[in-house]
Amino acid sequence: MLTPTATLARFAAELRYEHIPEAVLRKTEDLLVDWFGSAVAGHGARPVESITRFAAQMMGGPAAHAAALGQGGAEVLVSRQRASAYLAAMANAAASHVAEQDDVHNGSVFHPATVVFPPAVAVAQALGRSGQDLLAASVVGYEVGIRVGEFLGRSHYKVFHTTGTVGTLAAAAAVGHLLRLDAAQMQHALGSAGTQAAGLWEFLRTAADSKQLHTAHAAAAGLMSAYLAQDGFTGAAEILAGPQGMAAGMSSDADATRLTDGLGTRWATVETSFKYHASCRHTHPAADALLQVMREHGLKPADLQSVETQVHQGALDVLGPVTSPSTVHQSKFSMGTVLALVAQYGHAGLTEFDQHFLSEATRALRDRVSMRLDPEVDGAYPRRWIGKVTVHTTDGRVLHGRVDEPKGDPGNTLSRDEVTAKALRLAAFSQGATAAEMQQAVDALWQVAQWPVVGALLPSQVGAA
Amino acid sequence: MLTPTATLARFAAELRYEHIPEAVLRKTEDLLVDWFGSAVAGHGARPVESITRFAAQMMGGPAAHAAALGQGGAEVLVSRQRASAYLAAMANAAASHVAEQDDVHNGSVFHPATVVFPPAVAVAQALGRSGQDLLAASVVGYEVGIRVGEFLGRSHYKVFHTTGTVGTLAAAAAVGHLLRLDAAQMQHALGSAGTQAAGLWEFLRTAADSKQLHTAHAAAAGLMSAYLAQDGFTGAAEILAGPQGMAAGMSSDADATRLTDGLGTRWATVETSFKYHASCRHTHPAADALLQVMREHGLKPADLQSVETQVHQGALDVLGPVTSPSTVHQSKFSMGTVLALVAQYGHAGLTEFDQHFLSEATRALRDRVSMRLDPEVDGAYPRRWIGKVTVHTTDGRVLHGRVDEPKGDPGNTLSRDEVTAKALRLAAFSQGATAAEMQQAVDALWQVAQWPVVGALLPSQVGAA
Repeated sequence: MLTPTATLARFAAELRYEHIPEAVLRKTEDLLVDWFGSAVAGHGARPVESITRFAAQMMGGPAAHAAALGQGGAEVLVSRQRASAYLAAMANAAASHVAEQDDVHNGSVFHPATVVFPPAVAVAQALGRSGQDLLAASVVGYEVGIRVGEFLGRSHYKVFHTTGTVGTLAAAAAVGHLLRLDAAQMQHALGSAGTQAAGLWEFLRTAADSKQLHTAHAAAAGLMSAYLAQDGFTGAAEILAGPQGMAAGMSSDADATRLTDGLGTRWATVETSFKYHASCRHTHPAADALLQVMREHGLKPADLQSVETQVHQGALDVLGPVTSPSTVHQSKFSMGTVLALVAQYGHAGLTEFDQHFLSEATRALRDRVSMRLDPEVDGAYPRRWIGKVTVHTTDGRVLHGRVDEPKGDPGNTLSRDEVTAKALRLAAFSQGATAAEMQQAVDALWQVAQWPVVGALLPSQVGAA
Repeated sequence: MLTPTATLARFAAELRYEHIPEAVLRKTEDLLVDWFGSAVAGHGARPVESITRFAAQMMGGPAAHAAALGQGGAEVLVSRQRASAYLAAMANAAASHVAEQDDVHNGSVFHPATVVFPPAVAVAQALGRSGQDLLAASVVGYEVGIRVGEFLGRSHYKVFHTTGTVGTLAAAAAVGHLLRLDAAQMQHALGSAGTQAAGLWEFLRTAADSKQLHTAHAAAAGLMSAYLAQDGFTGAAEILAGPQGMAAGMSSDADATRLTDGLGTRWATVETSFKYHASCRHTHPAADALLQVMREHGLKPADLQSVETQVHQGALDVLGPVTSPSTVHQSKFSMGTVLALVAQYGHAGLTEFDQHFLSEATRALRDRVSMRLDPEVDGAYPRRWIGKVTVHTTDGRVLHGRVDEPKGDPGNTLSRDEVTAKALRLAAFSQGATAAEMQQAVDALWQVAQWPVVGALLPSQVGAA
C-alpha cells in the first residue's frame, strides 16, 4: 500500500505522453501559449528586472553566459540572454506573474503556469528535450500542483500564497519528469521541494514586490530539488501529510484524499482557467457580474450610485487590506478599482490599469464599491467562483448581477484565437517582443507537439555562441 | 514610533564596528573559527557534495568559474573552487551543518553560524570587504537571527527547523550590512527573506538529507534578498508580526517584544554555545549529566542497567521519532545512541559516531535509554538547557546526574585552544584540508580583525585566474 504522497510521486514519474488524453494535451498547448504571453509581459517590470539582474550577476558575468550557451543553457525571456536552467527558471517565473494575466485553477486557488512552465521550458532547453516531453512534464506539474493546493485547503491560503508554496512541488514534479526520475527519486524531489515551500501574503499590505519573488523562488527551489534527487539527495517521504510536514505546519483543514483524487482519470489541467481581466482573480467574478448587470440594464458608469459585491472569504482575506492602492500592481488587488475600470472600459486590461487606476473617475467609483461575505458564494468556493453584485443606481433602482462562470473558466473559455490575441496584446504592452517576433513565436509554439527539440522561444539578443 | 521590525532593521543597518564591545568581537572571532572547522568538516559528505555539484553546474561550467574568479567570486570551501557569492554561500551553508558541530543559541534554538558566516564570508570575498566589515556583519546576523528565533517561540520549533526559517533573515541581515543597505532597504531585505522562510522537521522521520538543504536555502535566499533590496526590490514591511506574516502563519506563541529585546545593550552573540558532542544539541545536557554521574561514582558502561533522561518537550519532539537510527546522521538524533557513545568513550565525536553508532555494545545500551518530560527542565528551556538523568545500576543502585550548563555553554565555554583543536579535528576527520593547511588557515583567521580584505580561507585548487 502506497501512501498518498508515494502514489502522487509514482504518477508523476510514470505518466507518459501516450497516456495523456488528446483534449488534455491541446489544453496544455493553450496554457503554454497563454503563459508565454504573460512571461513576455514581464519585460521591463522593475521587480522582474531586479531578479533578472541578480540571476545574471550570479552567473559570473558575460563569460559565464557564453559558457551556459555553449553547453545547453536556457533562455531568459525578458532579457533575451542565456543562463543556466536554474537562473533562467528563476527569472522567467518572476516575469510570468507580474501582469496578473497568467492562468489559475479555481479549486486549488493556485496559478500553475507561472511556476510550471518556466522551469519546464528552461530544463527542456538545457537538456534538448522534445516538445512532447515538455508537454508531458507540464501536465505532471499541473496535476501535482493542483492536487497539493487542494490538499492544503482554504486555511493555508489565508496566510500563504499558495502559488509560492505549492509552486515548489509543481516545479519539482515537472522538472523531475524531464530528468526522468523514477518514483522513489520523485518522492525525494517532492520532499526537498516541500521543505522549501514559502510565500506569505503580508506583502500585499504595503504593495511590496514579493509576488515575483515567490514565483521565482518556487521555480528555482523546485528545479533544484529535482536535480538533487537525480543526484541521490533524499527528501522527507511524507512532506505533505506527515506529522511535521507541510499540512502540520501550514494548514488546519488539510484533506489527504485530495492528493490522489482521480489520478490518471480526472485531469485537473483542463479545469484551469484563463484570466481575462489583468487583476487578482478574486475580483473577476464580481467584475463579470457587474458587466452583466450593466449590459442587461444598459447602465453607464454615471448610473452607479454604489456597488456591493457578494464574495467568498478568500476575497476578503486577500483584497480586504487594499483600500487605497498606490501602485498599479496594488490596484489589481483593489475590488473597487477593478470594478471602476470595467464599468468605464468594459474590461480591466493592462492598459486600463496603467493609465486609469488613479484617475478621478476611477477613485470616485472605487470608493463606492464594497464587499460582503455571501454564504452561497462562500459555500461554492473554491470549486466554483460565483460572481454576485447588487447595484444601487443614481435613480434609485436596486439591481442584481450574477455570473456562474467568469470569462476564462472552462465553461466560458478562450478560443485559440483569443489566447493568441491576448499573448500578442501582452507583448505589445510590455514591448518584450515586436509584433512580428511574437506572431512568429506563437505560431511556432502552437506546433510544440511536433518539435524534436525545445529551442529558444524568441530570437536571442546575444551573438556569441 | 518605529515598529519592532523597523527598529530591528535600523539596528542591523546602522550598527558600526566601533559600537560593538570588545568582548562581543572576540566571541565573534571564536564563533568564526569554530564555524570554519564545521564548514571544512562538510567535505566529502554526500548531501553536501550534491549541493556543491548543483551549484557548480548552475554556474555554467569551468569557464564560468574562471569568470567568477576574475571578477571577485567567492570560495567554495569543500571543493576549493570559486563560484558567485550566491552559489558559494549555498554550498558552504550546506557544508557547515552536516557534522552537527556548529554553534547554537539556546534561547532561540537556532544555529547561527551555518547561516550567517557562509553568506557573509562569500559576500565579503566577492566585494573585497575588510575583516572588520565581516565581523560587524556577522554580529548583525547573529543579533537579528537570534531575536527572530526567540520571537517565533517554541510552537514554531515543533514543526519548523528554526535554523532554516530564521536563517533567511539572519543571512539577509549580515549580507545587507556588507552591502551597506540603509534602514529602509534593510527592512525590505528582511521582508523578502521572511517570505522565503522554510524548513520542516518531517525529514527526520526518514533520515533524509534536508538539514543541509535548509541551511543552503536560508543562506542563498537571504543573500538574494539583500542584493534585491540594494537594487530597489521591496519586501513586506511587517513580515514578522504582520497579520499575514511569519508569526501568523508559523507560530502560535510569538512574542514581538523579543524582536528588540536589549538591542545594542544585550549582545545575544555572546550567549551562543559551542557544541562539544557531534550530535543534536538536545542530547547534550543529558550526555553531560550522564558523564557527571559516571565520573562521580566511577561507573563503567557495564554498570548501567538503564538510564532515564529527564528532558524538555523540544527534545521529545525532535528526538522522539528516532528510535532505531539507520545512518550516522540519524544516530546523532538518537538519545540512546549518544548516551551509549559517551558512556563508552567519554565523548561523542565524529569518529565515535562513524565507527561505533551501530556496534553491538552501542545498540544494547541505546535500547536501555529512555526520555521523560521533566517540569523543571522544561520550564527552564529554552533559556537554560538543564541536563538530568537517573541511572539504575546493575547492582541495584539508583543514582542521579545533573548539569546546569552543558560543556560549550557560555558559563562552561571552550578556550581558544579548544576551539582551534576542535577545528583541526574536524578537518582531519573529513580530510577537507591537510593539518598544515588547516593550522595555517586557523592561525590567520584569529587575526581576521586586521585583514584589510577578506580573501580565500584555504589555498585554492584552481590554477586559472
